[in-house]
Amino acid sequence: MSKFADAARNGLTPAALEATLRQVGEERYHNKHPFHHRMMAGALTKAELQAWALNRYCYQAMIPRKDAMIVSRAEDPELRAEWRRRIEDHDGVTGWDGGIARWLKLASGLGLNEELVKSERRALPATRFAVGAYLSFCTNRSLLEAVASSLTELFAPVIIGERVPAMLAKYSYVSEDILAYFTPRLKQAPRDSDFALAYVLAHATEPGKQQEVINALIFKCDILWAMLDALDYAYRDGGNIPPGAFVPEAR
Amino acid sequence: MSKFADAARNGLTPAALEATLRQVGEERYHNKHPFHHRMMAGALTKAELQAWALNRYCYQAMIPRKDAMIVSRAEDPELRAEWRRRIEDHDGVTGWDGGIARWLKLASGLGLNEELVKSERRALPATRFAVGAYLSFCTNRSLLEAVASSLTELFAPVIIGERVPAMLAKYSYVSEDILAYFTPRLKQAPRDSDFALAYVLAHATEPGKQQEVINALIFKCDILWAMLDALDYAYRDGGNIPPGAFVPEAR
Repeated sequence: MSKFADAARNGLTPAALEATLRQVGEERYHNKHPFHHRMMAGALTKAELQAWALNRYCYQAMIPRKDAMIVSRAEDPELRAEWRRRIEDHDGVTGWDGGIARWLKLASGLGLNEELVKSERRALPATRFAVGAYLSFCTNRSLLEAVASSLTELFAPVIIGERVPAMLAKYSYVSEDILAYFTPRLKQAPRDSDFALAYVLAHATEPGKQQEVINALIFKCDILWAMLDALDYAYRDGGNIPPGAFVPEAR
Repeated sequence: MSKFADAARNGLTPAALEATLRQVGEERYHNKHPFHHRMMAGALTKAELQAWALNRYCYQAMIPRKDAMIVSRAEDPELRAEWRRRIEDHDGVTGWDGGIARWLKLASGLGLNEELVKSERRALPATRFAVGAYLSFCTNRSLLEAVASSLTELFAPVIIGERVPAMLAKYSYVSEDILAYFTPRLKQAPRDSDFALAYVLAHATEPGKQQEVINALIFKCDILWAMLDALDYAYRDGGNIPPGAFVPEAR
């Protein structure tokens, strides 16, 4: 945290706060992670892609719950109405025709059993702890911090823009159909992050609050980073799979 | 979780439940982790030992808080009185003359700055998420599960018995003085785990509750294991230190 620890010490203009938040992403978003680099280079085994999809499912499945937590904490009906769309995006109309269902399609398209993925039983403990920390953060910190922690979506179009073409080009068994999750995200993420960024810039007007939103974004980058750390450790080169976690059949 | 997932399906005698809990430890306690094996073999760098001490401090510092949470949830004065001793063990009389202070001495004995360690700012995010998950577990699960999650202490004398002689023999800069933390633990841990085990065996009389206590111990083993996963990944061979985490000067 050192570099950004005192970033808001003297107070920041909205433009300077936005620039600082974008700088956090520039340095700490998980598109800088070695696991992502290996994904881009076509260097992941199918087993590693399966482990990625299976673990990331836990994150996807928790997102509408943390968004509902934010809705539950918001006193402003406009904020609630805006944020509710995120829940709809992930759960769809029926619960199983939104983003979570599309992520499940990605996982099964990579050869995983849907029920295994949905059960979450074989995810890495580190994934569960990170996902739980995110939900706890949105439960226990201020509403402003909870909103700010969503700002990794500012950088989502970048990573999707890198990931989708690379996956299609580098992995013969990956089709556009399997990656259908990402298409609506390219519109949803900017819409959502535009709103969240405007909210943060309007409400973080004191140095203390500005520092809190910077720290909230760092925290969220740490969550995403730690999930890739755990995958890279557990599954690279056969790896160090913790007891009880998913053991791939694929190579 | 597969192997133990249905262990209590038909109900277990107290002796069989105890045997199952010991089997969990046999297979999943962190003395089976590659990082511990490297520690025993004298293969860790001083940098790795520093990172271990710095990260483990976050765990040590949280333990009396989770114990206070258990005390706060216990309606039985005897349970509270017994469990309160754990808080005293870690905090001492003044807050800084118990187990936490002894761990700090271990960290500074390895060449770390005390204030850096106490700040917890440079710990791995994965450490923070694991430690937070443990506190959340003791906050949100049943009292019985919270008590059961402490049962890794059944196995503490084993790991201490392995760790202390190996560290003294294999690392020239480690002295008995530095390892003073572990001496009282050899008496405290068995006293505490005897009590907790008796409590669990007396209260987990139905299959559902027995499965919950088995799962609680697995959860706790996962916590300790994930902390070593994160250390091994971040610091082995220079490693993959996440942004903002402790960067050792030592080699």
